[in-house]
Amino acid sequence: MYIPTFDDVIAAQQRIGPYIHRTPVLTSRFLNELTGAELFFKCENLQKAGAFKARGASNAVFGLSDAQAAHGVATHSSGNHGTCLSYAAGRRGIPCTVVMPRTAPQAKKDAVRGYGGRVVECEPSTSSREAVFAEVVAETGAEFVHPYNDARVIAGQATCSVELIGQVEGLEALVAPIGGGGMVSGTCLALSKLAPGIRIYAAEPEQADDACRSFKAGHIIADDAPETVADGLKVPLKELTWHFVRSHVTDILTVSEAEIVEAMKLIWKRMKIVAEPSSAVPLATILKNRGIFAGKRVGVIITGGNVDLDKLPWS
Amino acid sequence: MYIPTFDDVIAAQQRIGPYIHRTPVLTSRFLNELTGAELFFKCENLQKAGAFKARGASNAVFGLSDAQAAHGVATHSSGNHGTCLSYAAGRRGIPCTVVMPRTAPQAKKDAVRGYGGRVVECEPSTSSREAVFAEVVAETGAEFVHPYNDARVIAGQATCSVELIGQVEGLEALVAPIGGGGMVSGTCLALSKLAPGIRIYAAEPEQADDACRSFKAGHIIADDAPETVADGLKVPLKELTWHFVRSHVTDILTVSEAEIVEAMKLIWKRMKIVAEPSSAVPLATILKNRGIFAGKRVGVIITGGNVDLDKLPWS
Repeated sequence: MYIPTFDDVIAAQQRIGPYIHRTPVLTSRFLNELTGAELFFKCENLQKAGAFKARGASNAVFGLSDAQAAHGVATHSSGNHGTCLSYAAGRRGIPCTVVMPRTAPQAKKDAVRGYGGRVVECEPSTSSREAVFAEVVAETGAEFVHPYNDARVIAGQATCSVELIGQVEGLEALVAPIGGGGMVSGTCLALSKLAPGIRIYAAEPEQADDACRSFKAGHIIADDAPETVADGLKVPLKELTWHFVRSHVTDILTVSEAEIVEAMKLIWKRMKIVAEPSSAVPLATILKNRGIFAGKRVGVIITGGNVDLDKLPWS
Repeated sequence: MYIPTFDDVIAAQQRIGPYIHRTPVLTSRFLNELTGAELFFKCENLQKAGAFKARGASNAVFGLSDAQAAHGVATHSSGNHGTCLSYAAGRRGIPCTVVMPRTAPQAKKDAVRGYGGRVVECEPSTSSREAVFAEVVAETGAEFVHPYNDARVIAGQATCSVELIGQVEGLEALVAPIGGGGMVSGTCLALSKLAPGIRIYAAEPEQADDACRSFKAGHIIADDAPETVADGLKVPLKELTWHFVRSHVTDILTVSEAEIVEAMKLIWKRMKIVAEPSSAVPLATILKNRGIFAGKRVGVIITGGNVDLDKLPWS
């Protein structure tokens, strides 16, 4: 298992610069007063393809040799990683195949295709996904880019926190949502080198709290099929992300579904941005744990903005 | 009638700097491909109090002498100007009274009060509004700050375009929505001095096309009570804004209600920002008039983000 280093992050930053946005950091006096903290929202919902995953996907795609790239890339993801890999492959002009359960939302399939990627459907089971994915790779020779258990992807996600600490001075804590742990791992990788004094908190839905339970137990616990409105956070930790999480995260805090939806609506209403449910988990956590965050300068990662506008969780 | 000058804009910029955001400029490859133009969205929905009107209101409030300010400020507005005046007065620590029809949305009343302002209700008629407003002024001695027909307000709004041309090089056209004409007048004031080669287009709902008809007729035409989803654009031009519009605007273009809602949803979906219907009128105009804008670098003012999230126009 190759563990990415800070040199990989520097290389990623130079490699992906032309293909990603340096996203803005927004603030809200209202939310500062409500939480008692000074919050700095890093808006990766305004990132290319609507999510921070454009960073890791671009790093993987643009790090391939021409010979490798000619075969294209492939992944299995019904979320932002599939869309973002398709985006990055499109920018390089190489094929991208995304294996998705046939039951995945049409909007997600359309998003992959919108950037030029190919969707291959499987049954909604792990065995079918693995079988179909193996076929795709055998047939195309495509390079597999895992959504988070991949050193190139983690090094790419790390560029987000590098940017953030260049944009905001004196941060004391940072809160990011945790699913598979790619963003949190990238944050650990960047901050442990650049600003080891900043405490890193991971925020998770109570209904998909496998990372929190893993953190307490000291080994990876994976749930079978958790159900949460924060659909980006259902996946479990893997070896590489577990490596970073267990060694650099201060704590993993959980919130209820109602707290997530309330925080999401607050973000839309007060900050005027479209953030997906997963992105609201950190603010929900800060609202719930005033004792930890009040009086501090806190970075908050808004991870993505890909939602179905016709099906909002409060309507 | 005092016509504001570019010196007033410079003074406004220095005066309001501490109370407003330098809002980001966002871009979208998708919308560029869709329109054939290169679009630069100036995001005043991310402005303090959620609208560009925080600029003009702050300029008026912070330009008052201490003696004047002690009596507070007052206005009649059921839209963003009332909220923004309340915001600015709150920052200066002076009273603010907003006269609003009792039929105005509760959210708008709450927004004024949320920033510390006082709401005084009138009947939903011009005569009642004028009578109630005269009482408020007689009783408090407050300074009237008109939503747009006010040199201080126009000079404040002008700072938006000053910022924009500092953020984006080589703009060839700029599109802003037009209601009373405060933003468009500020744009004219700024660009006629700093970049007279940039063409200024005003965008208006067909169902509230009084500015367009005024422009063609050569004199102000005011409609009685136009109905449009773009509720910030129902008000008519006044002498001061007409002065700028008739002398500096290249054209006023109109769009249908369906075109506005479609453009609004596109902005939310592709740019991940919450923009109010009025803010979508420029993009709707650009989509409709490809012949004018394709191939050009075009600034687009997203004027505000104050919407009722429980009542979206596409749901």
